[in-house]
Parts: sequence; structure tokens; C-alpha cells
Amino acid sequence: MSEANPGENMRAEIDEQPRIFAELLEATDIAAVASTIAQRKPRFALLAARGSSDHAALYAKYLIEVLLQLPAGLVSPSTTTLYGAQPDLSDVLLLTVSQSGGSPDLIEVTESARRRGATTVAITNTPDSALNAAAELSVHVRAGQELAVAATKTYSATLLALYLLVDAIRGGTGQAAAGLPDLARRALAESTAAVGEAVQRLRSTERLVTTARGYSLATALEAALKLAETSYLPARAYSGADLLHGPVAAIDPATAVLAVSGGGRGGAAMREVLDVVRERGADVRTLGSGPAAEHHIPVPGCAEELAPVLEILPVQQLALELALARGGDPDRPRGLSKVTRTR
Amino acid sequence: MSEANPGENMRAEIDEQPRIFAELLEATDIAAVASTIAQRKPRFALLAARGSSDHAALYAKYLIEVLLQLPAGLVSPSTTTLYGAQPDLSDVLLLTVSQSGGSPDLIEVTESARRRGATTVAITNTPDSALNAAAELSVHVRAGQELAVAATKTYSATLLALYLLVDAIRGGTGQAAAGLPDLARRALAESTAAVGEAVQRLRSTERLVTTARGYSLATALEAALKLAETSYLPARAYSGADLLHGPVAAIDPATAVLAVSGGGRGGAAMREVLDVVRERGADVRTLGSGPAAEHHIPVPGCAEELAPVLEILPVQQLALELALARGGDPDRPRGLSKVTRTR
Repeated sequence: MSEANPGENMRAEIDEQPRIFAELLEATDIAAVASTIAQRKPRFALLAARGSSDHAALYAKYLIEVLLQLPAGLVSPSTTTLYGAQPDLSDVLLLTVSQSGGSPDLIEVTESARRRGATTVAITNTPDSALNAAAELSVHVRAGQELAVAATKTYSATLLALYLLVDAIRGGTGQAAAGLPDLARRALAESTAAVGEAVQRLRSTERLVTTARGYSLATALEAALKLAETSYLPARAYSGADLLHGPVAAIDPATAVLAVSGGGRGGAAMREVLDVVRERGADVRTLGSGPAAEHHIPVPGCAEELAPVLEILPVQQLALELALARGGDPDRPRGLSKVTRTR
Repeated sequence: MSEANPGENMRAEIDEQPRIFAELLEATDIAAVASTIAQRKPRFALLAARGSSDHAALYAKYLIEVLLQLPAGLVSPSTTTLYGAQPDLSDVLLLTVSQSGGSPDLIEVTESARRRGATTVAITNTPDSALNAAAELSVHVRAGQELAVAATKTYSATLLALYLLVDAIRGGTGQAAAGLPDLARRALAESTAAVGEAVQRLRSTERLVTTARGYSLATALEAALKLAETSYLPARAYSGADLLHGPVAAIDPATAVLAVSGGGRGGAAMREVLDVVRERGADVRTLGSGPAAEHHIPVPGCAEELAPVLEILPVQQLALELALARGGDPDRPRGLSKVTRTR
């Protein structure tokens, strides 16, 4: 079917997201996992992931540092899998994020951390996976089966599950997220025209830079990956701060810039970045509920720490439509498979 | 002078590195800093940096996890500077890496961490900087003044200083690094022909992917940044494991791949990556002392954990010669400044 209608699976999965958010908000198992974690009183958090899940893990790192006031770091799996590091991980919370739960290196990292005293939690969309067996605790992302190779609904549902977990660890009830299903419907409906304009401009683009600050950095990273995977567009993401430090040298009128610009402190900090890339003559497009460039993809406003859950929706639409416009099938990008087997 | 002789400063600074390594190996102040850190018995390490220094920080993260058996993470400065996170950092070691010691966000992160109980160490090339004042302890990278805007000697000297610091924390005397000055001389001399060949091929390249696993991932990241900064070449770095997970879809015969392939476990784990990118028809070039593709830039062998100190030398030569071949002046890339002022 997909060959007859390229992008059919990806489109259907993008449209499922408002309903998935609503179902995830009704799930009751996250509170129990959060309660166990809170009782352990972790001192540090580690996050392990690869690919799109790595961007969800970065989002969770911000949530943990800001909302839980815990220092946190992203795991480099190879220090365990290649070099056999065996640190003492008592007082450490390890969140391993993987939609398939099947990546051998993440399973090895989780098993190893559990043996060394960490409280281990698998965040997966496949609740009977080997990763769930390796971890002490599990959070089910409840996105349903994902047929398109490019991750869409599993990414956004993972973000929301991570938010709900972190909020529950601090004793919250996910109140700030209650409006997300409706806001997600609006995000999808209200960005159609702007996404169409962006596709027309980007279909002949040679080079794209995505950028953001704060929580939305996860969106910029996922946008660059998604566009590179589905449209083969050379896309690279930078934190707005890092961009100004050096890579801005490579921004010129032939560069398209997608700047994620939300309504909170991260978006406010993007004003300087927008000024600089505009001065360099780049084709600048903003996305979000914050400061807007001439070309802008709107996203409804919400609590800043939840913005990445909504911001990714028009990015997925853009990746889908751009891939189709460039003659590809985003359901079946060349050379991509759903589970990495790397160690 | 630089306008008359483009790249003159960068070339001179590349050539200084063997002597700088020798002088750094003679420095005695690192042992005292290491002794103070060891007495504090940190449980967790954090690293703060931006730009090239971020790649040095990633290298240090691997050293700390493998050689000190401590969990470690890279700081996202904005959780402090934008969102005001104030985690308890007792038992935490914070290494802040900045050649200039002048970035306001890194100074703020360091001051904040010190107030919250962390043992704070500034690793800079500017020993009287504001960052040194903010941190409790300091390591001087001793690379001398760097005139070229593209960091070369300050990057490699920072790597070596971080190695010597970590080695001293575990009670070592830097023995494995003793041969580096001579090996660095050889690395520069023996790669000239291979760098020349690479320049001829890459001068018309539209897209470069750099990749590595393990310690050498820092080299792949720094290579992509250096080539993007000086030659405006769209270059993107991936861990070999992440590359196979998804972005390999964008690798095709029009893509040049620079794979860092050392003699240890990281290099061995690159064999699968090399096979896959070759199958996709990419123009593959290896760099290192390990498995070699048909086009190969040699680097003398050394202990795997020190390889990034040597691997970066031919990368710098490549960045310099490629920038000149493409008509640029790597001493003065467009839009780059030496100190970021971002917050």
C-alpha cells in the first residue's frame, strides 16, 4: 500500500498524535514508577538513548535539571560496551529511552547500570522488549505500532511520557499537560499553510541549519535528523549559543535556517541569534509560539517545558511534505531500518 | 601580515604543537590540582564547555568514565543561565573548559556550581581570566597566545592537559603520554602527502560526514566543526553507532566520509561502519592508526586514550590546506570571533 501512496503511513501516524496524547494522559502506571523513584531519592540522573530517542533524552535532561534540581548527563554507551567502565551507580537514576527496546548496546548499558546499583527505568513503546526485562522499572509510551520508518508519534509520545514521569516524581499530576490533545490538533491544523510555503522554498535548498535554545534544542536536533533522514537534505542542528560561537561563519544567503522560537526564556534568548543569522543574509524561518521572522510556522503556546511536544508536529509535517516534494517516500527512506543492532 | 599570507598564523600554530606538548608534560601544577580533587572523592563529574572546547570536554567525559570509573555528564549551560536550576552539587566535580576563560555563561555555570558545593576546576589557556577567578582550582593549558581564529594548538593542548589531570587523579604520572611530542612531529610530517590528496578530492565536495567511535568521537566532532568553520564545507559528525541507526540514509556517492579509525577498541568497532558507508558508494577516507580504507591519512599509534591528541593534527592540516584551496583565509574566517559572549 505504501508504494502506491508514498508517505501514507507517516501521514496517518502524524494525525494520530492528539488521540495518543489523550490516552497517555489517562494512563495510571507512570505515577507508581515515579513514586518508587522518588522514594530512592536519586542524587544524579543518567539518560541512555540513540537516534531520535537521544533528542527525547536531552529533553528529559532539561526537565530533570530544572524541575527536579538534579544534575544529569547523557550516557556514552561505548564507555560501557567498548571500554567496560564499571562506575558505582548507587544513588543514580538511569532512564533508557528506546521505542523498540531492542538496541543491544542500550540493553547492555541498562543491565550493567542495574548491577552497579542504579535505579533503572526503560521508556519504550514495546512493553515486552528485552530492554524492559533488563530494567527494574518500565514506562510504556503507548503510541501503538509505528509502520513508517521515520519516527513521529513514538517521538512525541516519548516526550510526553518523560514529562509526566518527571512531573510525577516531583509530586505533580500532569496538570500543565491537560490541554495538549487539543493544542496538538490546533498545531497540526494551523500550520498547514506555513508548512506548504516552507516546502516550496526548501525543496531546492542545499543546506539547512536548525537552531534553538533551552528545552526547544531537542526540537532543533530532531528536526535536523528527521529532515536529513526523510528528505536527504544536509541539515545540521546547533544550540543558538554554540552557533554564535563559531559555525555562524558558514551561514550565508544559500543557507536556510529553521529557528525554533518558543514563548518562554529559550525563545527570548533566540532574539540575538535571529538578528545575527538575518544579518548574514540567510533564508530564516521561525517555528514556535515566540518571536517570529517574516516566514513563520506557528505553534500554539503552552508551558515552556511542554513546548517540544507541540513544536515537533509541524516539523513532522514539513519532513513528510518535503520528502514527497523531493520525490522520496518517507515511509521507506533509503538505508534506514527501525532497530539499530550496533554494539 | 596574515592578509599577505593567508593561513600563516594557523600554519605556525599547528607546527608549534610538538613543543607545546613537551612543555605541558614538564608542568608540575597539574599534580597538585589532581591531589585536591582526589581527596574530595567526587561521585559524579560534570563538564561545561562550548564550541571546540565542547569536544575536549567529551574526550574528558570518556577519560573520567573509563579511567576514573565515575559517571559523568556534559552541562547544558542554559538550565542554569536561562532556567535558574540550583541542584545540590556536593560530591560533584565540575570541569569547565574554555581557552579564553571569558564566556559569560560558562563563568555563571561555574560560579553557580561552586556555591552549590561542587569542586570547580577551570581548564583555560588564559590563567588570569574571569573563569579562573570563578573556579576554586585551575589548570593552565600553556599553549601560548593563539592568533588564528580557528583553534588548533589550544584544542590539542587542552586534550593533553585533561588527560594529564585525569591520569594524575588516579595516581598516574602521565607515563603513557611521554612519547607524544615525538609522535606529534611524526604525525605532522608523515601525513603531508595524504592530506594533499584529500584536499584535491574534497575541494569540490558538497557534503562531508565525519564519524568515529569511542575516544575518537571527539576527533570526528572537532573535524566537522573545523572544516565547517574554515572551509565553509557542510560537515556533520556522527558517532558510528548513531550513523548506522538512521543518518546513513543520507550517505550516497556524492557524500565524502572521513572515518576516524584508531588502533584500539573504538577503531575495531568502526569496521562495520566502514563496510556500510562503502556499500553505499560514498567517497570514504580513513584517518588514524587502525583499519584503513583505500584513501587513508596515517597517524602514529599510541595508547588509545591518547589517540585524539595526535589524530587532530592532520585534521588541522587538512582544514588549513582545504580552506586555502577553496580560496579562504583560515586565519580570518567570515563571521567568527574568538570569544563567545552568549548567555
